[in-house]
Amino acid sequence: MSKFWSPIVSRLTPYTPGEQPKISNLVKLNTNENPYGPSPKAVAAMAQEVGDNLRLYPNPDAEPLKLAIAKRHGLSPAQVFVGNGSDEVLAHAFQALLKHGAPILFPDITYSFYPTYAGLYEVAYRTVPLADDFSIRVDDYLGHGDAIGGIIFPNPNAPTGCLLALDAIERMLAGNPDRVVIVDEAYIDFGGDSAIDLVARHPNLLVVQTLSKSRSLAGLRVGFAVGHADLISALERVKNSFNSYPLDRIAIAGATAAMEDDEHFDTTRKAVIASRGKMVADLTALGFDVLPSAANFVFARHPQHDAAGLAASLRSDGIIVRHFTSARINQFLRITVGTDDACQTLITSLRKHLA
Amino acid sequence: MSKFWSPIVSRLTPYTPGEQPKISNLVKLNTNENPYGPSPKAVAAMAQEVGDNLRLYPNPDAEPLKLAIAKRHGLSPAQVFVGNGSDEVLAHAFQALLKHGAPILFPDITYSFYPTYAGLYEVAYRTVPLADDFSIRVDDYLGHGDAIGGIIFPNPNAPTGCLLALDAIERMLAGNPDRVVIVDEAYIDFGGDSAIDLVARHPNLLVVQTLSKSRSLAGLRVGFAVGHADLISALERVKNSFNSYPLDRIAIAGATAAMEDDEHFDTTRKAVIASRGKMVADLTALGFDVLPSAANFVFARHPQHDAAGLAASLRSDGIIVRHFTSARINQFLRITVGTDDACQTLITSLRKHLA
Repeated sequence: MSKFWSPIVSRLTPYTPGEQPKISNLVKLNTNENPYGPSPKAVAAMAQEVGDNLRLYPNPDAEPLKLAIAKRHGLSPAQVFVGNGSDEVLAHAFQALLKHGAPILFPDITYSFYPTYAGLYEVAYRTVPLADDFSIRVDDYLGHGDAIGGIIFPNPNAPTGCLLALDAIERMLAGNPDRVVIVDEAYIDFGGDSAIDLVARHPNLLVVQTLSKSRSLAGLRVGFAVGHADLISALERVKNSFNSYPLDRIAIAGATAAMEDDEHFDTTRKAVIASRGKMVADLTALGFDVLPSAANFVFARHPQHDAAGLAASLRSDGIIVRHFTSARINQFLRITVGTDDACQTLITSLRKHLA
Repeated sequence: MSKFWSPIVSRLTPYTPGEQPKISNLVKLNTNENPYGPSPKAVAAMAQEVGDNLRLYPNPDAEPLKLAIAKRHGLSPAQVFVGNGSDEVLAHAFQALLKHGAPILFPDITYSFYPTYAGLYEVAYRTVPLADDFSIRVDDYLGHGDAIGGIIFPNPNAPTGCLLALDAIERMLAGNPDRVVIVDEAYIDFGGDSAIDLVARHPNLLVVQTLSKSRSLAGLRVGFAVGHADLISALERVKNSFNSYPLDRIAIAGATAAMEDDEHFDTTRKAVIASRGKMVADLTALGFDVLPSAANFVFARHPQHDAAGLAASLRSDGIIVRHFTSARINQFLRITVGTDDACQTLITSLRKHLA
């Protein structure tokens, strides 16, 4: 605290990302990175950009990338917003679309950056408890009218991995025609249907995705949002009042090529889905309760073993997973689906510690 | 305008960056890019990062880069903040350090993003007229006490290129002990002494720099701020409430190597300074009034020729420069110092149109 800080600074509760360990021989199953590398076409496109042209500013609108995203999803570029990771996109969305002087709603168990954004932009919020099976109850989000400022939730939810079906999302959209509903689809490509198909019918829907997970580009920082052009225009106005060029030349080139490479995308996400199936079976055989996951991670608890203790035991074997200390989920571990080898190392270690 | 927009969105006046033309055979002297490419060592470091490791998140604190900046300037890493271009750094600084419920001060002629940031964060401001010779009058910034929320100005100023001497800056710092003074040094390496040397004595000083200009990396988006650790800590709190990983893996690697390559830095900036000298002489010979420039651009007017007309004439010859329409400066052109060849093309075209 310092007399130079704006009053907001001391009120913030910054987000804590998952550990990025400095030693490299760990089995890293804690931040939901893809075990496979990015598209070779994306790598080639990025290599092509590394050179003297970096002296020049990037395209401030990242037009090639917007075009590639629009084309893939059957939209116009005016329905696409891009940013420096979906975290930046979400931050702008809080300021541009969720700040209406009434509390917004999100689940009590969800991406822990949401309350942080709310703090940063002074947006009040109310958390809505998930059902006992950790599913989102759509009815809880209906009938509030203007008494709420908007809704945001991840689908599949984080850190549970549970999926909400499109018809349920559509009911939520139809029930909140005057408020924006943000569906944060960081993990959708690993097992769910995207709400992007609902954009044409629902002007209050903003769908946010990232290239960090299913496109294997966490290290490049690219995310996007799609929705009605009016919503996109609000995001552009905020972005152009914040930073004209959030995406660098290399990121634009790499992300564009990655969005165009359907084959690598399909091969790698199917491999992750197959590994998840095996990991769920193995964990279940070890006595874990595993929530149904549509993501590239699983959320699991063991009825007889404390989660923090298990995480520490895994760590002693050089395996890191994520453990959250908040109520309701402090007996769970969130475990990223790695390569089959990494998953096998995890299972072997757990088997030893549970014995 | 849409019912879904937060009230702030319609009140924004987004910034308009200089044109990034889509045709490539133009002589581009409009956005102050460096005519020389980045450090070959930076290029090599970036090439090294383009690969499978992009599946992994970057270091959220960009530690190698902070270390390189700290080392170069004789500071500790806790005195260094890095961001996605100095525009992002400035945005966070407005929110974290300038928002105190009292108007901030900046010159009437200055970087036109400042009023935009002020709008985004609802920070009131008062502009302070430059002197008739376009210099900053330090006395105008003294004696306001808590009636102002802070001060920000570029040094050298943009778009004038005029430099304020360090002793004048120190007077401003000493006269505002309870308010943060931000010195935005995007262009300092082309002819001025950095206020970084004052950081140790003035806990209210934040110096912002960019790698876009003197490090030839406009296309990579990296900027930084240095100051007392308390100021940096405020910026970190805001950054970690906004986006955990603003710098991608390639940007961290390239920027670090660029900051470590003193030789390329010195060679290229000296070449730009030499070309500027020649350009100023040539423009003066053509009858232009040229403000004294410490930047990689010059700000010039011709007593007999309308600036907008000259800009249009240059454009018809495939040369783009920047023309601002605001009062006091609408008869000036801001012209980036390019290679000697590019400068010669400019001078030849101007000679033709002035004839």
